Amino acid sequence: MKQIEGGVCAAKGFQAAGVYCGIRKNKSKKDLALIVSEVKAACACVYTQNLVQGAPIAVTKANVADGYASAIVCNSGNANTCNANGVEIATQMCDLLGAALHIPASDVVVASTGVIGKPLDISPIASGIAPLVAALGNNSNAAAEAIMTTDVKKKEIAFSFTVGGKACHIGGICKGSGMIQPNMATMLGFITTDASISPAMLQKALSADVPNSFNMVSIDGDTSTNDMVTILANGLAGNAMITAEGVDFDAFCAALSAVTQYLSRSIAGDGEGATKLIVCQLAGAKDHAGAVKLAKSVINSPLVKCAMFGADANWGRVLCALGYAGVPTDVARISVTFSSKAGSILVCKNGAGVDFSEELAKKVLSESEINIEIQLGDGSASATAFGCDLTYDYVKINGDYRT
Amino acid sequence: MKQIEGGVCAAKGFQAAGVYCGIRKNKSKKDLALIVSEVKAACACVYTQNLVQGAPIAVTKANVADGYASAIVCNSGNANTCNANGVEIATQMCDLLGAALHIPASDVVVASTGVIGKPLDISPIASGIAPLVAALGNNSNAAAEAIMTTDVKKKEIAFSFTVGGKACHIGGICKGSGMIQPNMATMLGFITTDASISPAMLQKALSADVPNSFNMVSIDGDTSTNDMVTILANGLAGNAMITAEGVDFDAFCAALSAVTQYLSRSIAGDGEGATKLIVCQLAGAKDHAGAVKLAKSVINSPLVKCAMFGADANWGRVLCALGYAGVPTDVARISVTFSSKAGSILVCKNGAGVDFSEELAKKVLSESEINIEIQLGDGSASATAFGCDLTYDYVKINGDYRT
Repeated sequence: MKQIEGGVCAAKGFQAAGVYCGIRKNKSKKDLALIVSEVKAACACVYTQNLVQGAPIAVTKANVADGYASAIVCNSGNANTCNANGVEIATQMCDLLGAALHIPASDVVVASTGVIGKPLDISPIASGIAPLVAALGNNSNAAAEAIMTTDVKKKEIAFSFTVGGKACHIGGICKGSGMIQPNMATMLGFITTDASISPAMLQKALSADVPNSFNMVSIDGDTSTNDMVTILANGLAGNAMITAEGVDFDAFCAALSAVTQYLSRSIAGDGEGATKLIVCQLAGAKDHAGAVKLAKSVINSPLVKCAMFGADANWGRVLCALGYAGVPTDVARISVTFSSKAGSILVCKNGAGVDFSEELAKKVLSESEINIEIQLGDGSASATAFGCDLTYDYVKINGDYRT
Repeated sequence: MKQIEGGVCAAKGFQAAGVYCGIRKNKSKKDLALIVSEVKAACACVYTQNLVQGAPIAVTKANVADGYASAIVCNSGNANTCNANGVEIATQMCDLLGAALHIPASDVVVASTGVIGKPLDISPIASGIAPLVAALGNNSNAAAEAIMTTDVKKKEIAFSFTVGGKACHIGGICKGSGMIQPNMATMLGFITTDASISPAMLQKALSADVPNSFNMVSIDGDTSTNDMVTILANGLAGNAMITAEGVDFDAFCAALSAVTQYLSRSIAGDGEGATKLIVCQLAGAKDHAGAVKLAKSVINSPLVKCAMFGADANWGRVLCALGYAGVPTDVARISVTFSSKAGSILVCKNGAGVDFSEELAKKVLSESEINIEIQLGDGSASATAFGCDLTYDYVKINGDYRT
């Protein structure tokens, strides 16, 4: 496996585009994205578990029920959620794109992200579809930009890998910066691959991957209404179609994981207002479910997040967050280490503080990527959660998001 | 029932004190508090459900196991939690106070609040006990100040009420500003009354009250390791002892509720960095447990909290928080109204936005006390949760708490 350029256009037969169509007031920010496969592709999705779901999710679910799709269209600036005519608008988006691309509207995956509860006007999208289609090309970058909301950094990645002797490619883009605590789905993630794989195995690979990647990210504990990850696999790499578990499926899953792990870390590091990526590596738990709950509890604690912002080795807050996670744990066996490229420092052993250099701790915690390593001593299960610090800018961004 | 002056000294036979003994560096901030009943009092407590519990909680549990206590001693500046010698120190605090007051050490309730995981030196407390006892008097104020950490406002209240024709009094103080999401207990709350009531009925009253008062407060979703509410009832009002349910017990519970509701709202309004008290009044739920979960989910959402800080009527975030609360709800029946003393404004009906004046919404949300009224239309259960906005100052306070 090798990291390559190209994002969602790295795989054979995929083109992308991103344009400004007028949903946003700010004309310098693209707001309409498109990813198209030149042939119909196997398609798998996972969706938000929020009971309040965006209209695009309902329409996408219906469109991909047969396991196939050809295109993904996504607007930013408006989530098309909690609107009386939401489904109608999302359906129109598919109809307009289908007509422009000469494909069935039912082969379109549709997504929206932005403000909830504000009616989405179809006019700018209707007039934007033609320029969007005209802009199709090797433009993963433009699509990645067009799906951004409060994101500061574009998030894209691609890898080449081999299945059955054939060179395959996989790449993805995603957005996500606030309202992020994915639950069995995530913010918006779009992945493309030219590997040949059946819809059932594609769904199996994606469903198995997400709990350890996107679902381990939390910016603020708020699970969005519009979370979705979609993968299109068009088979143009020419490998024998993956239709069962085995070495080919494993190779595919490893490549998929490389993409999703990178994108998950990127989302956490680009959390709204974040200055630091925080990775909680928890080991020694009795079982995996408990490990996940405990690691997420630490990553979600506003007090831990503020301490990380201030480079303050306040490990008591880490223990506190473990204690209220609702997982039976022997506190007297817990140890906590903070580490980063500046070094590693043990701050708590057997549930109690140990002497440590505040100076070194400050250095370790002043880096832009920090690990909180927790050893429970209760068993052999582990989990890794991704998050960020809580800063003045998070408050600023979200104090007046709609205007 | 009538609101009166005096806090925890309003009830007959109670004295209080607060002094600076040297646990904190800042000499202008009192750090040792005492409440004493001149006769032994029935005592009831509720405690944090965090698995990581402060040493004072273990010692208090043992001391009040017989249902009686005479004094409450509490230090701020150090939580005496996650320390190898924590129980030893908490026991010494009881021994020292018992000797000074000529009461058994086992009649002392001990509490600590402040940094977790920093050894607590007994010396300043040992030398502070004598001046603390010497300062006993009608000093509820001083005790309320001595238990404060990042609290900005002192929190105390008292009421007079009648049981069986006898004038009774009840008063309380509390602290709590961050690490606040009480779970079957709370931050620190100390309540005194001269009503005569058996330990069993006192515990029953307190246990029934807390789920609707302190446990409905959330500042940041972090459940503290040292939460505790204690009530002492010394019987000096001379009413026939309350030993069963009935009108007397009801009168007592109503007075207790007046104290705890006031203190709960005070804690929420004085949340770390808060500029506004947010009250989520949720009605029309299928059952009470669901109503509690839904109301708390809204109160805890960082995005809702930031919107309230910015006086932004972003009701979509309210629906989002309801949607991820894990309670089955028919989104299409939800309505949301924001209200304050500046007016009332319906922003969402049947799960979708309605036209509203942004100008009026800004006015309503610019007040210092805001209600988020939610009607689910699913049933007749309701719940009210108390919280605050999320501000720059919360981040500032918690970015470098230890230094």
